[in-house]
Amino acid sequence: MRAFADITEALSALAVEVPSWAYGNSGTRFKVFGSPGTPRTVEEKVADAATVHRFTGLAPSVALHIPWDLVDDFGALRRNAEDLGVRIGTINSNTFQDDDYKLGALTHTDPKIRQKAIDHHFECIDVMHATGSRDLKIWLAEGTNYPGQGDLRARQDRLHEGLSTIYDRLADDQRLVLEYKFFEPAFYHTDVPDWGTSYVQVAALGERAMVCLDTGHHAPGTNIEFIVAQLLRLGKLGSFDFNSRFYADDDLIVGAADPYQLYRILVEVVRGGGYGPGSDVALMLDQCHNIEKKIPGQIRSVLNVQEMLARALLLDREALAAAQEEGDVLLANEIFMDAFYTDVRADLAHWREERGLPGDPMRAYVGSGHQERIEDERVGGTQAGWG
Amino acid sequence: MRAFADITEALSALAVEVPSWAYGNSGTRFKVFGSPGTPRTVEEKVADAATVHRFTGLAPSVALHIPWDLVDDFGALRRNAEDLGVRIGTINSNTFQDDDYKLGALTHTDPKIRQKAIDHHFECIDVMHATGSRDLKIWLAEGTNYPGQGDLRARQDRLHEGLSTIYDRLADDQRLVLEYKFFEPAFYHTDVPDWGTSYVQVAALGERAMVCLDTGHHAPGTNIEFIVAQLLRLGKLGSFDFNSRFYADDDLIVGAADPYQLYRILVEVVRGGGYGPGSDVALMLDQCHNIEKKIPGQIRSVLNVQEMLARALLLDREALAAAQEEGDVLLANEIFMDAFYTDVRADLAHWREERGLPGDPMRAYVGSGHQERIEDERVGGTQAGWG
Amino acid sequence: MRAFADITEALSALAVEVPSWAYGNSGTRFKVFGSPGTPRTVEEKVADAATVHRFTGLAPSVALHIPWDLVDDFGALRRNAEDLGVRIGTINSNTFQDDDYKLGALTHTDPKIRQKAIDHHFECIDVMHATGSRDLKIWLAEGTNYPGQGDLRARQDRLHEGLSTIYDRLADDQRLVLEYKFFEPAFYHTDVPDWGTSYVQVAALGERAMVCLDTGHHAPGTNIEFIVAQLLRLGKLGSFDFNSRFYADDDLIVGAADPYQLYRILVEVVRGGGYGPGSDVALMLDQCHNIEKKIPGQIRSVLNVQEMLARALLLDREALAAAQEEGDVLLANEIFMDAFYTDVRADLAHWREERGLPGDPMRAYVGSGHQERIEDERVGGTQAGWG
Amino acid sequence: MRAFADITEALSALAVEVPSWAYGNSGTRFKVFGSPGTPRTVEEKVADAATVHRFTGLAPSVALHIPWDLVDDFGALRRNAEDLGVRIGTINSNTFQDDDYKLGALTHTDPKIRQKAIDHHFECIDVMHATGSRDLKIWLAEGTNYPGQGDLRARQDRLHEGLSTIYDRLADDQRLVLEYKFFEPAFYHTDVPDWGTSYVQVAALGERAMVCLDTGHHAPGTNIEFIVAQLLRLGKLGSFDFNSRFYADDDLIVGAADPYQLYRILVEVVRGGGYGPGSDVALMLDQCHNIEKKIPGQIRSVLNVQEMLARALLLDREALAAAQEEGDVLLANEIFMDAFYTDVRADLAHWREERGLPGDPMRAYVGSGHQERIEDERVGGTQAGWG
Repeated sequence: MRAFADITEALSALAVEVPSWAYGNSGTRFKVFGSPGTPRTVEEKVADAATVHRFTGLAPSVALHIPWDLVDDFGALRRNAEDLGVRIGTINSNTFQDDDYKLGALTHTDPKIRQKAIDHHFECIDVMHATGSRDLKIWLAEGTNYPGQGDLRARQDRLHEGLSTIYDRLADDQRLVLEYKFFEPAFYHTDVPDWGTSYVQVAALGERAMVCLDTGHHAPGTNIEFIVAQLLRLGKLGSFDFNSRFYADDDLIVGAADPYQLYRILVEVVRGGGYGPGSDVALMLDQCHNIEKKIPGQIRSVLNVQEMLARALLLDREALAAAQEEGDVLLANEIFMDAFYTDVRADLAHWREERGLPGDPMRAYVGSGHQERIEDERVGGTQAGWG
Repeated sequence: MRAFADITEALSALAVEVPSWAYGNSGTRFKVFGSPGTPRTVEEKVADAATVHRFTGLAPSVALHIPWDLVDDFGALRRNAEDLGVRIGTINSNTFQDDDYKLGALTHTDPKIRQKAIDHHFECIDVMHATGSRDLKIWLAEGTNYPGQGDLRARQDRLHEGLSTIYDRLADDQRLVLEYKFFEPAFYHTDVPDWGTSYVQVAALGERAMVCLDTGHHAPGTNIEFIVAQLLRLGKLGSFDFNSRFYADDDLIVGAADPYQLYRILVEVVRGGGYGPGSDVALMLDQCHNIEKKIPGQIRSVLNVQEMLARALLLDREALAAAQEEGDVLLANEIFMDAFYTDVRADLAHWREERGLPGDPMRAYVGSGHQERIEDERVGGTQAGWG
Repeated sequence: MRAFADITEALSALAVEVPSWAYGNSGTRFKVFGSPGTPRTVEEKVADAATVHRFTGLAPSVALHIPWDLVDDFGALRRNAEDLGVRIGTINSNTFQDDDYKLGALTHTDPKIRQKAIDHHFECIDVMHATGSRDLKIWLAEGTNYPGQGDLRARQDRLHEGLSTIYDRLADDQRLVLEYKFFEPAFYHTDVPDWGTSYVQVAALGERAMVCLDTGHHAPGTNIEFIVAQLLRLGKLGSFDFNSRFYADDDLIVGAADPYQLYRILVEVVRGGGYGPGSDVALMLDQCHNIEKKIPGQIRSVLNVQEMLARALLLDREALAAAQEEGDVLLANEIFMDAFYTDVRADLAHWREERGLPGDPMRAYVGSGHQERIEDERVGGTQAGWG
Repeated sequence: MRAFADITEALSALAVEVPSWAYGNSGTRFKVFGSPGTPRTVEEKVADAATVHRFTGLAPSVALHIPWDLVDDFGALRRNAEDLGVRIGTINSNTFQDDDYKLGALTHTDPKIRQKAIDHHFECIDVMHATGSRDLKIWLAEGTNYPGQGDLRARQDRLHEGLSTIYDRLADDQRLVLEYKFFEPAFYHTDVPDWGTSYVQVAALGERAMVCLDTGHHAPGTNIEFIVAQLLRLGKLGSFDFNSRFYADDDLIVGAADPYQLYRILVEVVRGGGYGPGSDVALMLDQCHNIEKKIPGQIRSVLNVQEMLARALLLDREALAAAQEEGDVLLANEIFMDAFYTDVRADLAHWREERGLPGDPMRAYVGSGHQERIEDERVGGTQAGWG
């Protein structure tokens, strides 16, 4: 295995984008529990993101969701974020909460509703210009609940038409990333259900259209690291939405359900050039903290990515390649697991302290009194959520 | 195959309980779409249930959910229902929407919260006395989202304690039915995740505690008809919550996703004595009509149960048993599918007309103007939903 | 719904290719049960395929598997088949039963083993020339059992190289169809696990390289008809391997596990131009009859495809399109299910009799004495199987 | 977290039973690859088991499978094993490889075949007397492939009858453990598919009938540690068959697919009293080494159990209970994962060396020349496998 000292430089490149909505309330269709200290405004969400970055040094940008994060002056929001030490990152569109979109948005049979969805994306691109964002991320909730409800094929063609129109509006330094999802909220078919569909749709658009891989959006048993390897091979992996799941799109803390899977994914990211200088792959979180505290939930999450990335970087690729070449199955697997089983936490604590960060950001946050402070201050108003 | 004439008497026994909440709005965590004509009150929900019964003759009772259906005077509600030609059926409790239940109800570590959940069930039993309901149905949303969050074993013991206390409060002609569910809203573990757990919990209570089988609450690939057969064999199948699913607990119209599975389930119901005189198994719907119209969605659902039950009754069990005895795999399967592939719709239309019902309840409803009427009348107020 | 009379001409175009190996013994890793009457030679397998065609008129060609079906003189085999009224169809390669392929074939790290696998495909192409076969079907069993065992990315590159070499060897009127499979026999990763991978690999080859969709090769819950629609849209659906499954790649009789799914698939086939004159999509079976009799198992299978295709053709697409356009979810679904619930069996029996075929091929086969005859005749020798 | 020094005594109690068949060849339905050095006799399998124990000190007993391990003189086999330092453990029956069992064994419609299956178990009990084995393990491959093929309910009743007869034959110090399995080799229904069925069947037998939990025999997404906790709570967990899986019953090396799941399982084992003095739970492996070397595959496996057990023992249960009581979700999860992320390998190496064992058994085995020796010696004869 490689020594920790050999990976410290590579580790320094890690930046994990956090989603503004992770700081607001979320839940299931059964209940959204509120929690003290939840932001009431976009500015408070950005402040929470900045807090995560202050304690970890890992989260220099925050993704916005339109219209949840609509403000009058995005230039001011951008300056506000920069004053707090973070940037505005990816802009996420929303075509699933307007009554018009009940049966579809970009794929709707009615051209007026399709145009409305396209116009919404134009508005998002306007926001990108104001915030300096590179990526427009499109997750489409569309699909059908019953066989026969829609024409699967025609919807795919309308999807292409809508995406083309949006893509053409982007500036030359902007990208479109198209997320896929196995199911939910549609329960019979989803218009972009798998990486293959996202790939063929973005491949038909052009070079700056890429696939977004959300780790919670696959069929049971799917080998996600294979998809990572394939998309990097095809030059079409645009970004990650990290989270974890036991069942469906549970949106749990990344690494919480299957840490070894996270390791395998990050090994392929590094293997395929998806990390570090020269890579444009955006690493983001997309999570819900339904029952746990939100800021420390996000701190835990970026630390999980960092710890697992350290293990992936420690993997002795030369020894592994030799064992693979030899066909020594047990040795190759042992080398692979050796890095995974290495406890990197003490080294990382030391590394953080050298950089002026708290060695244990979780304990530092708890000890800082910040949580109590926001719980005291953020009284009244309407807590942010998915709406 | 048996002739349709031979099953008409058996068919007459069919009664499918409808859930009051099917007439209110429902949706996903992403969006609850409203729809014109949605009830604003419990009385309007009961009226909608009565409408379904009027058009089909299949839905003589309506299940209530407490507190969604709390009224001041349940006696009046009962009389109101009876005036409309339906009864109040199962009472469903709710321990998942109060802030106190964020980390559990009957399984919570805090005895005060457990007592609160028990008291809620006592209140439900009071309602049952007023409405004349036989069954208290308990679906517990409890569980944990992260490994380590709770003590799986201790929670199971507390669950037993709580259920015992509730069971002891029931009158001699009342039953407790305990529903199980694979996951959601909890994402790591659920306290009653499978039929085995529900069975051992109710077996520890007594004779009037039974299992409720919701057809959407199983792991992918689960053979549900096997569970039906097993629970009937054990004398512990209390009731069904019918719906259908492609992925998770989609709560789609029963029979919409896999009609052949519904057939297989009903074959085992009939085989095991779960249908007809002498059976106490309650057949209920538990569905959401997120995007389709609600009253016709329910009409479609009870018709689907009726059509599939007719096929199950048509199955030539003597011929099947002979083929099974012979070990003739292809012939046994052919006999089994013969009834399934039989188109019973014309015979059923005739059967309905003979009983003074519309031959095609779906077309009759559309032609009746009822939907337009309630859309006109039900303006203002707050549409009913899950809260 | 359309009338049966309106679809008889379209129905006449149906041809389902049967696999030679369906007539041999098959089983699980636990046991291969033998059965009386099983063929001992390739010629006897072809004779069984011809028997299926004689009773149904639906199975005019038989697929071969090399080396299971190696004969000295393929020209003679071809003439023999034609004398019996059937053609030799798709040639299937095999790179999973030689000891050299334990850790891979086209993806192996050792170039000598890769060349051996390529040479095997060259041999298959030679067979195609002798048999007049159009399609070379490649299912690759390769993959790894343990994380780290192989380099996912490098294997993909080697796969491309191998496929290119094979593709270049094909004549202008020959095609390469690449099958994908979720898992088995590899248990950690499979080199062609999903339609996306098959698509990007064949798209990199050229116009005559296509995807083969085996209905049993998907993750739980996968919407297969969506993939059918997408591949037809992309012009890359080459062929089907029909069978059915409850769990993994069960290889049961097509339509036996989920008849409604088969209907939905065939609706998309027809919708997307994958059936009838002008379509090059090959409809094949790929099944195992582990416990049921093999010839009637195949008769049942081609009948299942025919019956379900009839339903798909009966679908009233104009009415469906209107309901979809209206956004009438319930009506669209009802129109869709109307054709499914139609019992086409009597009409099909009549249709067969008009064409000089037995109205009920299953009964006709049982009554013909053919099964007893082959059980008497085929004594001694080694029964055919997977080797 | 607890210190390693605090768990060394508890660690010493670990004994993992190995299966004789792990040393023979195994594979998939597509191919069984042979490998040099594979045992030809039962004695050689026992010798291989003893080798695993010699290098690890963890595997003091070996399970046999009848008839694969039938010998003329089981007393001699027992003495032979004891001379090599191991015991004969569990006796496994086999009712899936005789042609008579094609459609069932204990559940067959034919009473003669049922009696034959019962007699086979009597024979196994005779073996147990000769070998001094405590446990008779029954895994039933029975089920059906097609709906309608068998009567689910009647089969369950016949199963009870057969098991009762077998159970009654056991001596007072012998146990019956009944394994359940989701699917395979039956593809529509399995007669003992889940823990609930195994539980109700063994509960109907008596105190010495217990459930066997094979970690690879569940539906996708099943929370296995919950079942462990439940069965321990009910006093009915008899034994484990450890292995790991990504998809179906892959039978991979335990801990190879999801190490965190193995940790969670072992945490519940310890929590529920399933480990250590006073516990009768048998920890066994049931694995296949299809492509990797078999003896080191088994060494790796018992080491994986040991390493993960060490982590489970290190868990600070007092701190965890306090965090659970507090409802501190993040802290509880962090405490839970803290032990998992601890690298116990150096401490365990030291612990082994103190006990006269090699610190790194994998390297020690490779360096010992043993593998080369058996590859040289075991030439000729028929390699052992599943038959």
